[in-house]
Amino acid sequence: MNQPTEPKADKSGVRRHNLSLVLRTVHDAGETTRAAVAARVGLTRPAVSSLVEQLLDLGFLVESGKTFSGQAGRPGTVLKPAGTGPAGLGVEINVGHVTVCLVDLAGTDRVRRTTAVDNRSAGASDVLARAAGIAAGVLDEAAALGLRPAGAALALPGLVSHGIVRQAPNLGWRDVPAAALFRDALAALRPAAHGLPAVSDNEANMAALAELRCGAPDAPRTFLHLTGGTGVGGAVVVHGELLRGAHGFAGEIGHLVVDARGPECRCGSRGCLEQYAGRHALLRAADAPDTDELAARAGRGEPRALAALAEAGRMLGRALSGAVNLLDPEAVVLGGVYPRLMPWLAPAVGEELAARVVSGLWPAGAPRLRAASPAADAARGAAGLVLHDVLADPLAHTAPEARPPGRLAETGGRRRTGAG
Amino acid sequence: MNQPTEPKADKSGVRRHNLSLVLRTVHDAGETTRAAVAARVGLTRPAVSSLVEQLLDLGFLVESGKTFSGQAGRPGTVLKPAGTGPAGLGVEINVGHVTVCLVDLAGTDRVRRTTAVDNRSAGASDVLARAAGIAAGVLDEAAALGLRPAGAALALPGLVSHGIVRQAPNLGWRDVPAAALFRDALAALRPAAHGLPAVSDNEANMAALAELRCGAPDAPRTFLHLTGGTGVGGAVVVHGELLRGAHGFAGEIGHLVVDARGPECRCGSRGCLEQYAGRHALLRAADAPDTDELAARAGRGEPRALAALAEAGRMLGRALSGAVNLLDPEAVVLGGVYPRLMPWLAPAVGEELAARVVSGLWPAGAPRLRAASPAADAARGAAGLVLHDVLADPLAHTAPEARPPGRLAETGGRRRTGAG
Repeated sequence: MNQPTEPKADKSGVRRHNLSLVLRTVHDAGETTRAAVAARVGLTRPAVSSLVEQLLDLGFLVESGKTFSGQAGRPGTVLKPAGTGPAGLGVEINVGHVTVCLVDLAGTDRVRRTTAVDNRSAGASDVLARAAGIAAGVLDEAAALGLRPAGAALALPGLVSHGIVRQAPNLGWRDVPAAALFRDALAALRPAAHGLPAVSDNEANMAALAELRCGAPDAPRTFLHLTGGTGVGGAVVVHGELLRGAHGFAGEIGHLVVDARGPECRCGSRGCLEQYAGRHALLRAADAPDTDELAARAGRGEPRALAALAEAGRMLGRALSGAVNLLDPEAVVLGGVYPRLMPWLAPAVGEELAARVVSGLWPAGAPRLRAASPAADAARGAAGLVLHDVLADPLAHTAPEARPPGRLAETGGRRRTGAG
Repeated sequence: MNQPTEPKADKSGVRRHNLSLVLRTVHDAGETTRAAVAARVGLTRPAVSSLVEQLLDLGFLVESGKTFSGQAGRPGTVLKPAGTGPAGLGVEINVGHVTVCLVDLAGTDRVRRTTAVDNRSAGASDVLARAAGIAAGVLDEAAALGLRPAGAALALPGLVSHGIVRQAPNLGWRDVPAAALFRDALAALRPAAHGLPAVSDNEANMAALAELRCGAPDAPRTFLHLTGGTGVGGAVVVHGELLRGAHGFAGEIGHLVVDARGPECRCGSRGCLEQYAGRHALLRAADAPDTDELAARAGRGEPRALAALAEAGRMLGRALSGAVNLLDPEAVVLGGVYPRLMPWLAPAVGEELAARVVSGLWPAGAPRLRAASPAADAARGAAGLVLHDVLADPLAHTAPEARPPGRLAETGGRRRTGAG
């Protein structure tokens, strides 16, 4: 047998699956009613009411007022994800900063700390211990808000496979078990965090996940996501899921070759996209000190700035045309330093896509090329990865005490209102 | 809510799911026992026996002798997929030929007809009517073998979306509802085929599916598949599933740019891979009349042939390095005209991959670059697509008579032997 077999389905598995289905439906809607959930998931009203009761009792959902809008008949009680209880801890470690955030089940960024620090000047263990120190402070604040971490996820600038950072050249890391080191350092500082699940992944993947969750309701679910930084990070999202590849290394669009005889790249190849469209290459070509100044000069129409941006846009478009031909995404999302440079990059990118995408579905100026959402960053995406696990199996993430004090009375009160 | 919600799970759905799980487990194993199935899927022996009984009664499985091998305790009755009953009808329509095959549930190609014909000299309706005529003959043979088509799938050289061939430049087709035209033509010839489900897809996708099913047991499940022909077809398989993209156009690796200033391509772009590694380009560079002669000359060490193959290999490797960086596949499989040219292509492809794949996982000469299986072609992949649907939900593909004559006696006989 040459393929993994999915788990069998049985009755307790069915209820567990349906609890997740109802929780995700409320989560995706933000606010909804039992009737709307039943219509959406195709279960009966009594079945949905029973599942909702359990999710209320376990603290995953809360009720909030009534709605008459959009529903025939009786008013419905509004359901929404709880603002207390399980939350995702996201940790972004980059060359010049550490960001830690805690995101609740409703998807709100509740606590966030960013510290500017030179992470190249210390070893991996020290950097991770420092990140754990910042995270410990975030957890103290979280406890005061009634939030408890369901897990931690680390976003790192490198190739990450099975929890090990294989290479992070800008940090100087090789084969670092980052998630385990972080988890142990955090448990040493806050014994309550002992046993907290921790994972790590490439920062570009995490930023793409954040885009998926912070984007508009009509945001694409199959897209390429580029993060313009020192390098050009990339991620591929297919039907709302990250494409990770066989070893977790998928998405390295920054190393697509745009000119085989081009300049040497730190990866060992030549003419990679990041040699033309990475921040360093762009600033060098424009002779600008930083991207703010580059944008200002382009805004004033300075020829050298405009030429550098047009050339970077052409190279981005050339690499993207190959990626679009290979993946047929709904959209390409440009993040990192690119959103503020879009007015000058987008025309050249669009021209290349229009000329080179074989399906003819990418006319220049198409809305399929878009800037990343300002709220989407890798730390937030990391926190979202934890919440994804909670939503997929809420029963695995219940509080130590299954039914908090006070819930019984509330339950009685709810029941008198009639199931909404 | 911005994502599709999967169907609810309920009890009849659970049994349906588990019937599929057991059938797929037997299918993947080729031959197995009830005990081995139970161990594999994690259901109890009685539950598996009940599911197996139903699959035997419905004609999806057969029993065949006993085995003592590899199992403790009592001998097990060997289970295997039936060689009669539902089968997949695969139809490949290309520039110079039509191939129709019928593949049974065990994955065996039971009937196959190939007709050499110039499909550019007729309109799409005539070409599809001709294919239906060939298919009608195949169905007559199939009936004599106790096989009935569960559906038909068409493999076509072009961009196919939602059953419509949007563009097939080598056939001169645009916006052709190929599956519907084929189905109607077949029903006009064989009224019994009325209502037969028919789908269509890109031939490179179908060839990749065939590779998935014809490959060795340890064959990769996440791979890039290239088909060298007039153009260079491509497909992306992730965890055993085709990656289709937002519109069904994914996989167009033939139009990755390898030299932005290169020759014009029929797609409107410049310097696409197929301008260097497509059959026409390769034969022109080598000044050879066909690939047999090219291989013969290369085998004799003729410099022009060797140079043309090395250059095509470099360009293949360059495009593939980008695709590997983006997708992180386990392997790259080269089909079409490439397998017989592998001795001369592979070194240059491997060198480029070794130099340009950022993860460092593609050293030159790695077994990750491999030739397609000789048995895997697009017609067979198309038939496999139909069988995939049967395996996913056998109850939707039962025979008109639910329990064929003679099954009761056999059932009694089976039960006396003890469930193996």
